[in-house]
Order: sequence, then C-alpha cells, then structure tokens
Amino acid sequence: MRQSQLFTKTRKEAPKDEVSKNAELLIRAGFIHKEMAGVYAFLPLGLRVLNNLVAIVRDEMNKIGGQEVSLTALQEKSLWQKTGRWDDQVVDNWFKTELKNGTEVGLAFTHEEPLTAIMKNFISSYRDLPKFVYQFQTKFRNEARAKSGIMRGREFLMKDLYSFSDSIENHSQFYEKAKKAYNSIYDRAGVGHLTHVTMATGGTFSKYSHEFQTETSSGEDIIYICENCNVAINKEIFPEYNNVCPDCQNTKFREAKAVEVGNIFTLGTKFSNPLELTYVDEKGEKKEVVMGCYGIGIGRLMGTIVEVLSDAKGIVWPREVAPFVVHLIEMKGSEAVSTAAEKLYRDLNKKGITVLWDDRDTRAGEKFADADLIGIPYRVVISEKTIKENKVELKLRTEDEAQLVDEETLFQKIS
Amino acid sequence: MRQSQLFTKTRKEAPKDEVSKNAELLIRAGFIHKEMAGVYAFLPLGLRVLNNLVAIVRDEMNKIGGQEVSLTALQEKSLWQKTGRWDDQVVDNWFKTELKNGTEVGLAFTHEEPLTAIMKNFISSYRDLPKFVYQFQTKFRNEARAKSGIMRGREFLMKDLYSFSDSIENHSQFYEKAKKAYNSIYDRAGVGHLTHVTMATGGTFSKYSHEFQTETSSGEDIIYICENCNVAINKEIFPEYNNVCPDCQNTKFREAKAVEVGNIFTLGTKFSNPLELTYVDEKGEKKEVVMGCYGIGIGRLMGTIVEVLSDAKGIVWPREVAPFVVHLIEMKGSEAVSTAAEKLYRDLNKKGITVLWDDRDTRAGEKFADADLIGIPYRVVISEKTIKENKVELKLRTEDEAQLVDEETLFQKIS
Repeated sequence: MRQSQLFTKTRKEAPKDEVSKNAELLIRAGFIHKEMAGVYAFLPLGLRVLNNLVAIVRDEMNKIGGQEVSLTALQEKSLWQKTGRWDDQVVDNWFKTELKNGTEVGLAFTHEEPLTAIMKNFISSYRDLPKFVYQFQTKFRNEARAKSGIMRGREFLMKDLYSFSDSIENHSQFYEKAKKAYNSIYDRAGVGHLTHVTMATGGTFSKYSHEFQTETSSGEDIIYICENCNVAINKEIFPEYNNVCPDCQNTKFREAKAVEVGNIFTLGTKFSNPLELTYVDEKGEKKEVVMGCYGIGIGRLMGTIVEVLSDAKGIVWPREVAPFVVHLIEMKGSEAVSTAAEKLYRDLNKKGITVLWDDRDTRAGEKFADADLIGIPYRVVISEKTIKENKVELKLRTEDEAQLVDEETLFQKIS
Repeated sequence: MRQSQLFTKTRKEAPKDEVSKNAELLIRAGFIHKEMAGVYAFLPLGLRVLNNLVAIVRDEMNKIGGQEVSLTALQEKSLWQKTGRWDDQVVDNWFKTELKNGTEVGLAFTHEEPLTAIMKNFISSYRDLPKFVYQFQTKFRNEARAKSGIMRGREFLMKDLYSFSDSIENHSQFYEKAKKAYNSIYDRAGVGHLTHVTMATGGTFSKYSHEFQTETSSGEDIIYICENCNVAINKEIFPEYNNVCPDCQNTKFREAKAVEVGNIFTLGTKFSNPLELTYVDEKGEKKEVVMGCYGIGIGRLMGTIVEVLSDAKGIVWPREVAPFVVHLIEMKGSEAVSTAAEKLYRDLNKKGITVLWDDRDTRAGEKFADADLIGIPYRVVISEKTIKENKVELKLRTEDEAQLVDEETLFQKIS
C-alpha cells in the first residue's frame, strides 16, 4: 500500500488521558482510535495486525480440530438464569439492555451458556463426541476501571474455544493438546520467550487451571517463575506449593509482574449439568458431557506485544504479526528513484511480501521517525545514492545498523 | 472437511416459531441457530458462507480504493447528540445500556458519527481527500418486529463504507464507481439477474438515493421495474415519475415485491457540518467535507440468496458463495470405495477446491437428501459401481441428471 493513500497519520503527542504505553504508541502510530475508556476502534494498520493474530490463532485451533462458529452478543435472560449467572450479584460486569417489548437481554461477556444450548441439538450419543468449537467474537464486559489501553477492554475481540468430551480422561488429552497449541500461538506472536504456563485457581472440577502469563512491568498479575524449568505459579495459589515447583521440585522462584494473555480451564459438568447437555454411552447409560474452555483476548495479545517489544523509538512488530513485512522508504529525488521504488514495490508484492511504500513528499527524518514508530520489521530505503550503486539500504527494526544490499540479497534476507 | 466430524446435523423439521423460508432452510441444514427473534448464531457451514460473502464484498471495496477499519459497538452519547440522533424520538431502534458509573452508552445501529469524528484527526487539507473507509461490523437495531429470519436482524453483520470528498462532483464520480462495484457484488453472489438499481428517496443533499432491490415474494418493499431497461423505482417515490422511466423514457413498468440488499446514499455535509469535519482548499478556504455512505447487510444478502435460489429440496448456493464447492458422497461399501473417496478428497483439496466429504455410515437416501438440503453446487458420488468403471458420478445441484465422468473430466467441469 502507498503510504500517501493511507488515511491515518502519525502523531507526535499521545492523547493526554491515555496512561497505558500500548494505547499511547498505537494511537500515535495511527493503529487505533479511542472511542471511550476500554473501547477502541481499529484503523487500517491496527486491523491488519489484529487480523494477523486472528489468522495465527485460527490456524492453531484448526490444527487441533476446532470448528469455527460465530455466536451472538445479545443473550436471553432465561438461559443464563439456569446456570445462575444472570444475577448482577454473581456476575458484576454485565452490560444489559432491553428489547422494544421490555424484555431484558444481556451482551455476552462469555459464551458457555449459548454454545452449550446449541450443542444440545447435535450431541446425544458417545459417537457425537468429542467436539471442539471456537469463535472470534466481540465480548462486552462492564469493567469499572479501564486504564490499560487495549489490554483490558469493555468491548474486545476474543477467541474462545469450548471442548465437549465423553470423559475426563479424553478431556485431559485435548487439554494438553490445547496447551501446546497455545504455546505455538505465543511463539508465532513473538512473545513466547516471555510467556509462562502458569498454575492458577481451578474450579469445582479441577484444582487448577492454566494461565499463559507474559512478563511485563505493566502486568496486573504477580507470578512466581521457577528458575529451573520456567513454569510459573500465580500469586493467588503460590502458598499452596510451599515454595516447591510442581514440575521439577526446584525451590528457587523469581517474582515477576505479568499479564494474562490466555487461559485454559476444565469446566467439567459445571454447564452441562444445569443445561442438561448429556449423551448416551456405549452401554446405553446417560451421562453428562465433560467441558473445557480456552480463551485468548486478541486485542490484549496485541497490546502485550506492544508493551514488551517496543523500544524508545516506537513499536517493534514480530514478522508474522506486522501490518506489513517491508516498509519501503522512497527518498524523493529524481524520476529514477521513483521508478526504482515502484519496481521494487511490485516485485515484493508479486512474491507475496506485503509492503507499505512511503511515497510521501516528506523529509527523510520524518520518514525514518515514522518507520520506527510504526514498527515494520524490514526498512528498505531507495535513494539517489542507492540506485547509483544498484542496491538498496536494508535495516531491521530490531537493529541499529543499515546495510547496502542488492535486490537478490534483499529477497533472501526477507524470505 | 469430513462430514462425520462436522458437529452440525440436518433436521427434518423446521422450528415451529420460524416463519421465514431462509431461516427455516438454514436452520434445517445446520447453517444457523436462532438465539432469539432477529438474533442468529452462525454455525460452521453458515459462517463459511458469510465469510465468502465478506471476501467478495471486501475485494470489490478494495478495488475502488476502500481502506478497512473496525469501529466499535459501544457509543458515546455526546457524539450523537451533536447530530441530533441520540434522541429515541428521532432514532427509534437504539439499544442503550450504561457503564458502571451510570454513563449512558448506545450500541451502534450505524457508524457515520464515530467515523466522521475519527476522520477529523486525519483530514485537514484538500490533499487529504478523497478517502474511502469501510468495515464489516455488527450493527444492533432494536426492531419491534423481527420475523424475516436473517433478512432483518436485531444484531447483524453489515459492510458500511463512507466516502469523504472535496466536492459534490468528485463525490458523484466515486458514487458511480460504488454503484458498479455493488452490481459486481450481486453478480458474484449469484443474484445479479434479480437485482435492480432502484431510485429511492434521498435526503437533504440529494433528491434520490439508490437501493439495490432483489425481486422475491418474501420482500417487504414494492418496486416498479422498467420493462425496457430494468431500472426500478421504489413505490415511495414512483408517483413523482409520472410513469416515465428516468433512464430510457419507457412507460411500461411491472410491479414486484423485493428486498433491499444494499443502498448507496449521498450524505453531503449532513454529518460533516455538525461534527465540523472541514478541510482547507487550494485557495486557503475552509470547506465542509462531502460525504456518502454505502451499505450492504451481509446476513441479509445470504438470506436473500436462500430465498430466491432454493428449490423444493433445499438450498442452492452459487459457487463463489457455497460453503464447499464439492459435496463428495461416499457410498459405503468395500475398502476400495473408501480409498478412492479419500484419494479424490485429497486431489481436490490439493487443487484448492473445497470439499465436504460425506464419509458417514448413513444410507444413500439420507445422504442425497442432506446434499440437496445443504445445497453445495457439485455433488460427486463414489460407489462400487463408479469405481468399477474408474469414474465418478457428477451432478450439479441445479440439474436433475447425473453423469458418469472420469477424474480428468471432473476437474475440467469443476475448475
């Protein structure tokens, strides 16, 4: 895409009311717009990043057998009354509204109830199990405070998968698969090295759940990381372990602030019982379906990437997440420079490499500052100087030094 | 995908409370689930169709220079008060809710106000124009009645594009481009032959707007179609034309019921004026930006396709919209049949042709009835009989007769 066409522009100043680093940088770079606290619109660059994260998560969910659906925001009271979660005393972050005829309806903050109700139409026998169903859907949560940018939204995009199994053993097998898929997601999203599988409180059916916690000073959680095996324990349940790592028996931990970028949870029959999701087993006996849930806040993951990877100059996107792979900077000069830039732009696009082409009539310093702020992984400069040598100047966002390379080397380095 | 893995199943009976043909068929075939009147969840097959329609619309919007964003559902009162649209007396289908601190917020039924507010950050000079911005977003409309299945939702996915131009002349140029793009969309969605560009009431800034109306007996609108040139006029404004076609001066019209599957509208400065979206022109004069809006309800378009193309046996999907291109029916028999089916499944997938492979242990009659109901364009049967002849049986959903063809002919016919 030609940057001269892009409708967003960078800003020098962050909005005064924005206290989080992620929103500050993303707003300055033109990725998002703040509608109100905890409610952000995604502009072209931001939506590209969000969609890249969705693509990674979808790929990993499909690999473990997930089937994608899209449930609704509007929710019927009666369904949630069956599980006791309609009550504002039980769930304190509902947004509720009403139909023209006065019927009260809610905006879904999660989707266990509606999906369990849907599955009743399709699950009746052990032959119908297991099933794994997921979606990317907007969740609405009426948070009292929302000061963490896109890391804690009142309205945000979430991937939630629900598993339906015939036994706790088969559930556990899938649960472990999901754990591995989650690790792949964070690796591909560029924050795997900072993200820890973390023991956390469970529920009725399992003593523990697992969170995926990414270390960052802006995190709201405290975790204790085993210095030997990197497994972590949430502060909430750390005392239960008596300072011994459950995985490797090591006794040395370090404390860190972290943000929860995902969680997986054994639900057991918590929802299948009140909503009567049952199946008949091989012996003809009626049993309750064993469920699990597996969530990732896509916006929160995007915000976390910004928090942990950015530097003093701006955002640093990992390649698979970046809005474009190459930021092509054209140093306005003779017609030959423009021609060379356009040729390279086309060549890269032909190879399926996405390019933001800075073809603006702007001075070099501003172009470089914008490129650093926007954070595209490969910066390629074409100028009078580079075309004289029949080369381009390549600089990685994560490095300080640029190098002159010919086009063939460029393609090798980028591919 | 293997049909034995798909979690949805077809049903013989439609739900009793469902009166619309589109929802009846889509629910029976397992494409959607009714959450409440006017609120439908999209199950795997339905979501695939919805995503195919999104892909068509996105492609056509990108071709005319659209830049994609994703705005928010939650809306601030003060912004909508500036245009006078917060008042329930003015807009009677708001869903409203409130934040924990008591602040009233709305759920967007459209997005002129928030996008105009966003564009104020990026438009200040004539050099910043024109800009074309679109999104696929869930709209919430508190409809008093919602009995048309996915054709009139209380919560539904909509593509809305907004244009920002420096003059009415330049606006009109884009408006005509958008009209052509819309025609391409309906052609690709398989309903172009039934869809008419229809003159409708305009607003303050333009005498007329244009609707895209698809003829169907289930439509809620009445249009008059010029028997010569196929242009139509909405009943609301038909009297103004004195029975003369504005395009070809013909005087013969036929009346038809139709559903509005899209509309394009000249907004002029209706929103840029109260929200103060201005630019400075070449002479240094401050002017108001000229706007247009261009909507397509994606769910409504999907419902319309079902309404107008289905037959007594079920749904008939146009190829580009279909959840899968091929429905491969394996007639359970010897191991050789399964092997042949699996080989064809892999070969088709390799060529990028999507396949729903009916590998279920179900009798033939049920498989054929399901295939007709689900409506995938190419039905391919592999049985003992076909493998003996080293062929497959191919039947188009739109035809009655099947034919035996070899694999090469199959690929030719499908590609």
